[in-house]
Amino acid sequence: MFAPVYLDHNATTPLDPVVLDAMMPWLSQRFGNASSRHEYGRDARRAIDAAREQVALAVGAHATEVVFTSGGSEANNLFVKGVAARQRPGLAAISAVEHPCVMKPAEQLARQGWEVCKLSVDAQGRVDTAAFREVVARRPRFVSVMAANNETGVVQDIAALSALAKPAGAWFHADAVQALGKMPLDFRVLNAAGVNALTVSAHKIGGPQGAGALIVDKRVELEPLIAGGGHERGLRSGTENVAAIVGFGAACAQAVGRLEEVSRRLPALRQRIEAGLADIGAVVFGAEAPRLPNTVLFSIPGIEGETLVGQLDRAGFAVASGAACSSANPEPSHVLQAMAVPPVLARGAVRVSLGVANTEQHMDDFLLTLQETVSKLRRLSAIAV
Amino acid sequence: MFAPVYLDHNATTPLDPVVLDAMMPWLSQRFGNASSRHEYGRDARRAIDAAREQVALAVGAHATEVVFTSGGSEANNLFVKGVAARQRPGLAAISAVEHPCVMKPAEQLARQGWEVCKLSVDAQGRVDTAAFREVVARRPRFVSVMAANNETGVVQDIAALSALAKPAGAWFHADAVQALGKMPLDFRVLNAAGVNALTVSAHKIGGPQGAGALIVDKRVELEPLIAGGGHERGLRSGTENVAAIVGFGAACAQAVGRLEEVSRRLPALRQRIEAGLADIGAVVFGAEAPRLPNTVLFSIPGIEGETLVGQLDRAGFAVASGAACSSANPEPSHVLQAMAVPPVLARGAVRVSLGVANTEQHMDDFLLTLQETVSKLRRLSAIAV
Repeated sequence: MFAPVYLDHNATTPLDPVVLDAMMPWLSQRFGNASSRHEYGRDARRAIDAAREQVALAVGAHATEVVFTSGGSEANNLFVKGVAARQRPGLAAISAVEHPCVMKPAEQLARQGWEVCKLSVDAQGRVDTAAFREVVARRPRFVSVMAANNETGVVQDIAALSALAKPAGAWFHADAVQALGKMPLDFRVLNAAGVNALTVSAHKIGGPQGAGALIVDKRVELEPLIAGGGHERGLRSGTENVAAIVGFGAACAQAVGRLEEVSRRLPALRQRIEAGLADIGAVVFGAEAPRLPNTVLFSIPGIEGETLVGQLDRAGFAVASGAACSSANPEPSHVLQAMAVPPVLARGAVRVSLGVANTEQHMDDFLLTLQETVSKLRRLSAIAV
Repeated sequence: MFAPVYLDHNATTPLDPVVLDAMMPWLSQRFGNASSRHEYGRDARRAIDAAREQVALAVGAHATEVVFTSGGSEANNLFVKGVAARQRPGLAAISAVEHPCVMKPAEQLARQGWEVCKLSVDAQGRVDTAAFREVVARRPRFVSVMAANNETGVVQDIAALSALAKPAGAWFHADAVQALGKMPLDFRVLNAAGVNALTVSAHKIGGPQGAGALIVDKRVELEPLIAGGGHERGLRSGTENVAAIVGFGAACAQAVGRLEEVSRRLPALRQRIEAGLADIGAVVFGAEAPRLPNTVLFSIPGIEGETLVGQLDRAGFAVASGAACSSANPEPSHVLQAMAVPPVLARGAVRVSLGVANTEQHMDDFLLTLQETVSKLRRLSAIAV
């Protein structure tokens, strides 16, 4: 039984045993299709309704604002394409550091006559407010800026940005997949500022893979991405994944209860790692910006990120190079490019993302292994030269 | 603990305990993101690869022809919208008895300049070959005809229809969600005839909700419905639902092993029900067409389907009225309308769909309860008149 130390929680998280317990009945005797009009079906429907309340509570939304999807990628595609399909082609603005599942659908729109503007960020990865104001003045039909970046953990001030976009009449969406469970999110407050939609996902917060949601202000007109039987108020058809939705609800309840612990313990663990990284001469990206408490993306000059991740994996530590979600397609990170990080440094990027199960011992063991690995790689590199 | 007799397997099926066993490790210690480049990730990737082989084997396809989705609705939307997005608007042909998740995306295309022709069916629910030839002569860009209908169980001769469509250069898709596990499906043979894509789903064959696939000939150019990190050869992005995909693979292996039992036992059970139905004066829809071995859609003149389903539910039998997937939106069944069934008879429709766990005792108990219920409703109706 392998059990490397898991330090890649922004890619996915272990399923919380409490969440699994909540899911189990829906993977055995209680198996109904929630649209069926018999007891098995009504039982499943009640479970989905309860989970919807739990998800809504975790993000400060009303249950009727929750549209369940198969995950964050689907929810982001639903917003981008769903809003666009209800309008004539025009200007859309997304930040230059968005996840590919916002970037790629926007590029699909660009091939259909939309103008897609990528909002520039500063060297710390924060959306440039002056540039944002200029784009907003051109009246985009919608804006998408993530709440927190999956690679760097850098947090955007989506309330302030949406308040700038609101007078222009643009629908404002924020991908909050990485933010949920790691920082407070209150859709009522954000919505009052100008945020019309949030994307969240279960498997980043101890829930199962296969469930996510678009939290969406009912004024937003959306064309369904998956049309059919009319599930989810007609916005997302398809037999509901009851077990995954129940798990998402349970994970949200856990996340709300754990936010205090996350906010207290994880920054201390991250600081411990960052102190060690400073000793090895690592560069931490977005270090001067507000960041998620669990994420550190760093580069050690002269060492390839891919190589380091491979060595650390063999030594029993699971970390990421670049963005895990697009590891199938390894290119220099578009996030670091947008932050004007020199390519040679960007190629060294390694991400450590912590979870509540991580301990000080994990941090110390990781740093020791990292130091040894870096020394070894530097010796090899010196010999090669 | 309630446990009504479950006779609604076309809506969803109980999760096979063997399938759950296969899924469990992926809901506990083996939780990686399949795109991660560490051991947790590689472990998940190997599991997905193995499941892909199992799904491919069950439908006679090559593993590289399997595109995993969140379910059948997504796979149908992927085909319809994905093919359309790569062509200029033109003619599309779908049968008049398709599931809403083919019908609705086709209607979305119609609003974007496509002409959508609904292929007529005869009184038994079979696509009318003469009408089909006429439509094909107009060179549709794609055709979608389901392998077997979810409401009636009527089987279409998709090999013959696709062979007619092939010379016209139309891509031919078949929704095989209800066919899988209930009749042989061989994509190599179908593909040679002219079928370019099949939709299949896990939860209709003892697998989990949340997994499906589009089996697709690589010559078909498809635009992804969910774009992003580039998963599934760029055709379906989003972190893979590893547990559900593993369950889908295991369910496919079970389905292959059970096809002989399904083909032998279920027709006998259905015949038992149909003999009883004849005694009560019920009309069986599509009775003269080839049908799935597990499905019977019937109507008892003078009795509302909704009422009967409600009474049977209270008496401990779970059956469906109309199509379960669109029960959120109860309208007279478009399938029976297309078969020119008089509305008054169509409103009486009740579907019984069997599974391997059903027994002769279930059939006899069901018939007894049905007879009692019908007698009671007829008495009430006589009093009301």
